[in-house]
Amino acid sequence: MKAKVYVTLKPSVLDPQGKAIHHSVELLGFGQVTDIRQGKYFEIALDAELSEADARKSAEKIAKDVLANPVIEDYKVEMVK
Amino acid sequence: MKAKVYVTLKPSVLDPQGKAIHHSVELLGFGQVTDIRQGKYFEIALDAELSEADARKSAEKIAKDVLANPVIEDYKVEMVK
Repeated sequence: MKAKVYVTLKPSVLDPQGKAIHHSVELLGFGQVTDIRQGKYFEIALDAELSEADARKSAEKIAKDVLANPVIEDYKVEMVK
Repeated sequence: MKAKVYVTLKPSVLDPQGKAIHHSVELLGFGQVTDIRQGKYFEIALDAELSEADARKSAEKIAKDVLANPVIEDYKVEMVK
């Protein structure tokens, strides 16, 4: 079983990396872009013998404790068969 | 209109950062994890007056030319209303 974890900065947190990418993209001639924000993406492969509920619980715990900083970041976990 | 871009290393490319995260996660007691791979995630906000087809074209071009290195990375673009 696989879990996909998306980690993004909270909307109220400044994203200088995203701003830099936005600026570069504008210089390259993409004028239609109004904003870019960068996040992180993880694919976690879990033991195939785990039930979906247990796998989701593990993935949520890993996302919360290790992959994201809950003070400034939001995360989303998606399970894939 | 918003585009979500996921950039991942191709499966044949080694992911030392993912391996390091996997190792840390194991040390923290998550034994059910068999692999972790790290990727990048971007949210691109595009001019609301663009048609969906044009917005997708721009987002695909930005993903291919700027956000991903097609030699070692795959990318996926998803449009959101």
